[in-house]
Amino acid sequence: MVDPNAGVVMGKIEQRLNNLGFELPPPFIFPKNNRVGCTQFGNLLLLSGHGLSLPELPGVRQRGRLGVDVSEEEGYATARAVALTMLASIKQQCGDLDRVKRVLRLFGMVNCEPTYERQPQIIDGASDLLLELWGPENGRHARTAVGMVLPRGIAVEINGEFELHGD
Amino acid sequence: MVDPNAGVVMGKIEQRLNNLGFELPPPFIFPKNNRVGCTQFGNLLLLSGHGLSLPELPGVRQRGRLGVDVSEEEGYATARAVALTMLASIKQQCGDLDRVKRVLRLFGMVNCEPTYERQPQIIDGASDLLLELWGPENGRHARTAVGMVLPRGIAVEINGEFELHGD
Amino acid sequence: MVDPNAGVVMGKIEQRLNNLGFELPPPFIFPKNNRVGCTQFGNLLLLSGHGLSLPELPGVRQRGRLGVDVSEEEGYATARAVALTMLASIKQQCGDLDRVKRVLRLFGMVNCEPTYERQPQIIDGASDLLLELWGPENGRHARTAVGMVLPRGIAVEINGEFELHGD
Repeated sequence: MVDPNAGVVMGKIEQRLNNLGFELPPPFIFPKNNRVGCTQFGNLLLLSGHGLSLPELPGVRQRGRLGVDVSEEEGYATARAVALTMLASIKQQCGDLDRVKRVLRLFGMVNCEPTYERQPQIIDGASDLLLELWGPENGRHARTAVGMVLPRGIAVEINGEFELHGD
Repeated sequence: MVDPNAGVVMGKIEQRLNNLGFELPPPFIFPKNNRVGCTQFGNLLLLSGHGLSLPELPGVRQRGRLGVDVSEEEGYATARAVALTMLASIKQQCGDLDRVKRVLRLFGMVNCEPTYERQPQIIDGASDLLLELWGPENGRHARTAVGMVLPRGIAVEINGEFELHGD
Repeated sequence: MVDPNAGVVMGKIEQRLNNLGFELPPPFIFPKNNRVGCTQFGNLLLLSGHGLSLPELPGVRQRGRLGVDVSEEEGYATARAVALTMLASIKQQCGDLDRVKRVLRLFGMVNCEPTYERQPQIIDGASDLLLELWGPENGRHARTAVGMVLPRGIAVEINGEFELHGD
C-alpha cells in the first residue's frame, strides 16, 4: 500500500524539534563537490565539521571568537544552531531523523583566545538539544570540547558520529 | 553455577596494570547528564575526551601548558594518568578491561604555546601504557598528537576508539 | 593457479595515481613502536595523523605555518602530499589501494596563525586528489578542516576513516 503523504510526513524527532521551537534548516550546500555533510559506514554516520550558514536565531553568531567578541550565551546558542545544521545533513542523507538510533559522539571546536577555558559550556548548546530530542538513553553521548582556529572565523564547529537503526 | 566472587574478580589487564604500579581510578562523574565517558557501536567503543580529575600520581599536572609551565616529564606522566581515566570509563561501560580486544586509535590534545613541537613525546605517556597492557599486536594503535586550547586549562586531553571482543 | 607477478601487479587506483603524475611514497616508519599508520575495525580503516616525511614534490613544505611563511599554493600541495603518505599507510595495511571501497572522512589540521581562515582551501589538496582517485560516488567524503599547533612544526596533518570492500 502506498502512502500518498509519505514525502511530507514529519517524523517524531523532527516534530519534537518543532515543539521545542526550532525548525530544521535547509542542508548546507558545499562550495566544492569533493565533500558532503555525512557519509555512512553500515549503520554508522560520520559527520563533517558543521558551522557555516547557521540559521538566523536569537544569539547565533556567524563569526567571532569566544573570550574576545562572543559571549557565553551567544556561544551556547551558536552551538545549538550548529547541531541543527548537523541534523539537516543527517536528514538529507537518511530521509528522516527517526532513522537515528542514538547520538554516539560529538567533537566540539570553539574559536577562542588561548586562555579560554569554558568550551564545554559552549558545546552544551548542541549536547542539550540532542539530549532533549533523543532522551536520556539514546541522546547522552561521548564528547570532546576544545579550542582551536576555525575556518572563515566561525565561532563554533562540530563533527561527530551517530548510529542508525538497522534495516 | 553462580560465582560468589564474580563482582570482585580482577581481570588480567587490570592485574597487569596493578603489577606496573598503577591503579584504576574511579570513573569520572560528568557535571551534566548530557554526556558519558564512552558509547558503544557494536564492538566499537567511542571515547570522550578525558583529562579532568586525574589521579594524583608523581608528576601529574591537573592544569598547565606545555612550553610554558609544564615540563616534558610532567606532560608524559599526565598523559599516562589521562589513559588511566579512559580505562576507568571503559571498565564502567564494559565491566572488565579484558573485554577490550585492541586499542584502535588515540587523538591526543596538548595544551601548549604556539611554537611547541613535542606533542608526540607527551602523548607517548598514554600510548606506552596501552602498549604495555595489550602488547605489541593489540596495543599498537593509530594516533594523532597535536596542540590546542583545552577546557579548564588542563594540560592534556585524549579521546579515541577501542575494539571489544565479540560476544 | 599462482600468479608469479602477484607481488608486483599494480592496482587500478595506484595506476590512476601514476597517470596523474604522482607516485606512492614508501610508508612512514614510526620512530616508536607504540603506534602504526592505521588500524582496522572490520572494514573500517582508522588512520593516524599523517604529515611527517612528505615526498619532495614541487611546493611541498616539510615545515611552516599558513599565514606566516607558507603560501596557499604550498599549503595545497602539502596537503596533497600528506594524502599520498596516508595512501602509503593504507597500502601497507591492505596490500592494494583497490581494497578501499570509499573515502569516508578526513580530519584536516593546518598549522596557522590565530586569524587564519582558509583551512578548507588547504585541505582541498588532499580532498581533490582522493576525489580524482575514487570518483564522485566513492571519493566524496565528510570532512573537517581547522587550525591548530602541529608537532615538529609541520604545516599540515590529516587523519581520517576509509571503508574497505568486504571479503
